Amino acid sequence: MNSENKLCVYNTITRKKELFEPINPPFVGMYVCGPTVYGDAHLGNCRTFVSYDLMYRYLLHLGYRVRYVRNITDVGHLVNDADEGDDKIAKKARMEKLEPMEIVQRYTLGFRDVMQKFNTLPPSIEPTATGHILEQIEMTQKLIDNGYAYSVNGSVYFDVIKYNQKFQYGKLSGRVIEELIKTERDLDGQEEKKNTIDFALWKLAKPEHIMRWTSPWGKGFPGWHLECSVMSTKYLGSPFDIHGGGMDLKFPHHECEIAQNVGAEGSEPVKYWLHTNMLTVGGQRMGKSLGNYISPDQLFTGDHKMLSKSYSPMTVRFFMLQTHYASTLDFSDEALKASEKGFRKILNGLKTIKELSYQEKQDIFDEALNKDIEQLSSLCYEGMNDDFNSPKLIANLFNLLKYINSFHNKVLNIGALKPENFILLKTTFITFVENILGLKEEKNNNPNMLDDVLKTLLDTYSEAKNRKDYATVDLIRKEIKKQGILIKDTKEGVEWSYEE
Amino acid sequence: MNSENKLCVYNTITRKKELFEPINPPFVGMYVCGPTVYGDAHLGNCRTFVSYDLMYRYLLHLGYRVRYVRNITDVGHLVNDADEGDDKIAKKARMEKLEPMEIVQRYTLGFRDVMQKFNTLPPSIEPTATGHILEQIEMTQKLIDNGYAYSVNGSVYFDVIKYNQKFQYGKLSGRVIEELIKTERDLDGQEEKKNTIDFALWKLAKPEHIMRWTSPWGKGFPGWHLECSVMSTKYLGSPFDIHGGGMDLKFPHHECEIAQNVGAEGSEPVKYWLHTNMLTVGGQRMGKSLGNYISPDQLFTGDHKMLSKSYSPMTVRFFMLQTHYASTLDFSDEALKASEKGFRKILNGLKTIKELSYQEKQDIFDEALNKDIEQLSSLCYEGMNDDFNSPKLIANLFNLLKYINSFHNKVLNIGALKPENFILLKTTFITFVENILGLKEEKNNNPNMLDDVLKTLLDTYSEAKNRKDYATVDLIRKEIKKQGILIKDTKEGVEWSYEE
Repeated sequence: MNSENKLCVYNTITRKKELFEPINPPFVGMYVCGPTVYGDAHLGNCRTFVSYDLMYRYLLHLGYRVRYVRNITDVGHLVNDADEGDDKIAKKARMEKLEPMEIVQRYTLGFRDVMQKFNTLPPSIEPTATGHILEQIEMTQKLIDNGYAYSVNGSVYFDVIKYNQKFQYGKLSGRVIEELIKTERDLDGQEEKKNTIDFALWKLAKPEHIMRWTSPWGKGFPGWHLECSVMSTKYLGSPFDIHGGGMDLKFPHHECEIAQNVGAEGSEPVKYWLHTNMLTVGGQRMGKSLGNYISPDQLFTGDHKMLSKSYSPMTVRFFMLQTHYASTLDFSDEALKASEKGFRKILNGLKTIKELSYQEKQDIFDEALNKDIEQLSSLCYEGMNDDFNSPKLIANLFNLLKYINSFHNKVLNIGALKPENFILLKTTFITFVENILGLKEEKNNNPNMLDDVLKTLLDTYSEAKNRKDYATVDLIRKEIKKQGILIKDTKEGVEWSYEE
Repeated sequence: MNSENKLCVYNTITRKKELFEPINPPFVGMYVCGPTVYGDAHLGNCRTFVSYDLMYRYLLHLGYRVRYVRNITDVGHLVNDADEGDDKIAKKARMEKLEPMEIVQRYTLGFRDVMQKFNTLPPSIEPTATGHILEQIEMTQKLIDNGYAYSVNGSVYFDVIKYNQKFQYGKLSGRVIEELIKTERDLDGQEEKKNTIDFALWKLAKPEHIMRWTSPWGKGFPGWHLECSVMSTKYLGSPFDIHGGGMDLKFPHHECEIAQNVGAEGSEPVKYWLHTNMLTVGGQRMGKSLGNYISPDQLFTGDHKMLSKSYSPMTVRFFMLQTHYASTLDFSDEALKASEKGFRKILNGLKTIKELSYQEKQDIFDEALNKDIEQLSSLCYEGMNDDFNSPKLIANLFNLLKYINSFHNKVLNIGALKPENFILLKTTFITFVENILGLKEEKNNNPNMLDDVLKTLLDTYSEAKNRKDYATVDLIRKEIKKQGILIKDTKEGVEWSYEE
C-alpha cells in the first residue's frame, strides 16, 4: 500500500470524507446500534449489520485491535393486559404472566442465527439495555446534577433548550432547534415536559408496564436513547472512534445520545459517525403495509410472491455488498438473480485459484501482465480505503478473476507471472473474498444436498449392479464405507445403513 | 398411561422420591444453575445441562408449559494487574485495558455453540448476573432490613447464626451448623465477619477489581450466591417448582440460596431440588492436574491421548443419557466406543421405522405380539416417570428396536400388528429418540462428508467415462446438475464447478 492509499471514511457529523486516524492506535473502538429484540430480524437491520461487519473485518485486516460493541435493546414498552384487580391472584400466577425476557430470548437467538447465516463475525461485546439499568440511573442523576435534566412525577426529562444554550443540539442531523420546536407535535403525556422537544431519560412505569426497576424517582424504566450513551462509553471510553447505525437513527436517537454524553461529561463522545442507508424493494420503501415486506427467511426459502426462487445467505450477502453502504439498496428478484450468477463466478474463481499451481519460467515474464496484477491488487485496497467501497472492490476482484480464469484455461501462461505476483494474486483474491467480504462456500447449506448426492450415488450403484459391472459396484461400496455407510443389497433393492 | 404411571422425582431436600405435582399446573418453573463464562465449556457442566435438557423435553412432552431459566454467571473476580498509579493514563487508555465483558462474550458464544452441538434446547430465559445488579442490591437491602445481614466496611454479609435461630441452615445438604462452625477455616478477609460461617452478599471492590457497581455500601460487586436467589424468583415467582444444578453446588451454593430467599421472603423458594451427579474419567475424578481432563472439543476431534478416535456430539449425548443423571458417569474410550455402536443401531432403527410400511391383514393379529408392543411402549414412559431414568428408557427402546428389525427383515409379519399398534410403535420410537432423548441424525456434522461423497461420485463418473459407459456418465451428470454442480471434462481429467 502506498502512502496515499489510506483508509478514509465519510463522517456524518463533519459531512466530509476524512482520513481515518484512531484516537489511540492500534486500538479502535466501534459502537453500532443493534437490534430491538421484540420481533424477527428485519432485512434492513441485516443490511446495516453486514455493512459494519465488512468494516470490522477490514479494520482487523489492516491490523487494528478493534473492540466492536453492538448493543441489544431488550427494554421495550410491553404492557400487561391482564386484569390486575385481584393482586393475590396476579402474584400467585406469576408463571402465567407474559415474561418479556422470554420474548427477548427467543428473538435474540433468532437474530444471532440470522447473523450467523450471513457469516457476520460476533461483536466483541453485546451489552443489553436491561443489563445496564444502574449505569443509566447514574447518568440520569449526573444530568440532573449538571442542570440538563429535571424530574417530574417520577419521570426525568432532558432539558434540550437549556443544553442548547451552551452546546449545539442538532449538530449531527443538521436540524435547527427553532424549527424542531415548531414542528414537534404535542403528544400524549407531553404535559410533563418543559418543552415538547425535551426527551425522556427515565419514565415512571404505569401499573400495566411489566418491565420496571427501582430508581431514585420511583419504579420505572429508562428512556430509549440512554442505553447507547451509557454502554458505548462504558466499554469504549470517551471519546471513542466510530459510532455507527442506520441513517434513520441519526435523528432523534444519535442526536440525543450526543446531548446526553456532552451534558454528562462536557465533551463529544464520538470521533467518526458513520451511517448506513436504507433498503427499498422494487424502488419503494419496504413496509408491511405496502405488501412488499420480505424477511431474511423468506429470501432463504424463496417463499414470497415477489421471488421466483430461493437465495442463499451468501448470495444475499454478496448482493448487499455490491452496493456501497451509504447508498440505497434496492431488492428485486432480477437483481438477486444477477448477484447469484456473479457470486457463483466468484466461488468458482476461489476454487480455481486454490487449485492452480504455478510453474516458473523465468525467461518469459510478461511485464505488462505483472504490472496489471500488481495494480489490480492495489486497487482492491483503494476501493476499501475509499470509505469501505465494496462495489469498487468487487469490480476489481472480477478483473482479477478474468486473469485467474485465463491462467486456468491456458489462454495465458501462468509462467509469465513472477512468483511473487502469483502469490500476490492468490493472496489478494482469497483474502478479500473470504476474510474481508466474508463470503464462503455453502454447499453444506442445502440440508438435503448430501442426501441427494448420496441418492445419485446409490442409483449409480444399482445401475452398475444391474449390468453386472462389479468394478464400479465395488468401488462405490468401498469408498462410501469410509464414510461409515454400508450398502446392502436386499430383495427390494439397494439400501444403506450406518455401520454399527 | 395408567394412573400409576406418573412422573416421580427424587427431591434432594426431602431425600425421597416424590410424585411430581406442579404448584400451578399446567405451568412448571425450572431454574438451573448455569455456567460461569470465564473459560471453555466443561464436560461436567455439559453432562449437567444435557440432563436438564432431557427433563425439560420430557416435561414439555407431558404437556406442561415449562419456563426454563438457566443463568449465566458473568461476574467474576477478575483483577487488573496494570499499574493504576497514573489515573489519567488509565482513563485515556480504556481501550487498552482488559474488558471482562469481552471474555464473557467469547465464552458465552462458545458455551452456546457446544450446547447446540449437543442438541440441547435453549432455555426460555438466560439471565445474567450483571444484568440483575439492581435486584441483587435490593435483596441485600431487604436482608439487612429483616435483620439477617449486616454491612461492614462497604461489604455486606449474611448472618448465618441469626438466621439459624429462626430457620434451619443446612437443611438441603444435611449439614449441622455446629460442625460447620468448627470446620470453617479462617480465611483472608474473614475478620470482617461476625462468624466465619457467614457469607458475602456484597463485596467492596478493591482498586484492582475491574467489575464494580455503585451500591448503598459503596462501589462493589455481588456475592456469588445472590444472583440465583434473585433471578430464579424474579422469573418464576416464589415458590417455584424445580431447582437444579450439579451436586457440588448443594453446599454451600444452594444452601445459601435457600437462606437468602427465606431470609428475604420468609418462605422456602423451591418445591423440588434436583441434583445431577459428577463425572469421572477411567474411574478417577476428572481434573487438569490429574492429566485426565477432556474437553468437549477433544471428544469431537479425538485429539486426546486417552481417545482412540473422535466421537460425534450425538454419540456423546447418547453415552451420557445411558447413565441416570443421579449416578456417577464414567468416561472411557471403551465405553464411548460401545455407545457409538448402540447409537448407530438406534439411528438405523429410526431410518427403518420411518420407511417401514404397514399392510393390514386383519385375520392374523398376534395377541401376544400386540400386547408386547403395548407393554414396551408403556415401559418407555415408566422409565422416564421413574425420576427421568433414561437408561431404563433406552433399554426399552432397544427392545422395541428388535421388533422393528424383525418386521423389516420379515422375520415377523407386520400384518400381525393391529394398525393402532403399528402407529404406537412408530410414534413411541420416534418420539422418545428424537424429541425426548434429543438425538438426531448427524451425517452433515462431518464437514467433509459431502466433499468425500462428491469425490466418490466423480471417481465413478471418470471410471464410467473411461470404459465408455455413457449411460452412467449421463445419469451422474444429469442428477448432479440438479444440485447446481456442473461436471466438466478437461484434458487434465474431470472437474466440477458451480453452475453460474
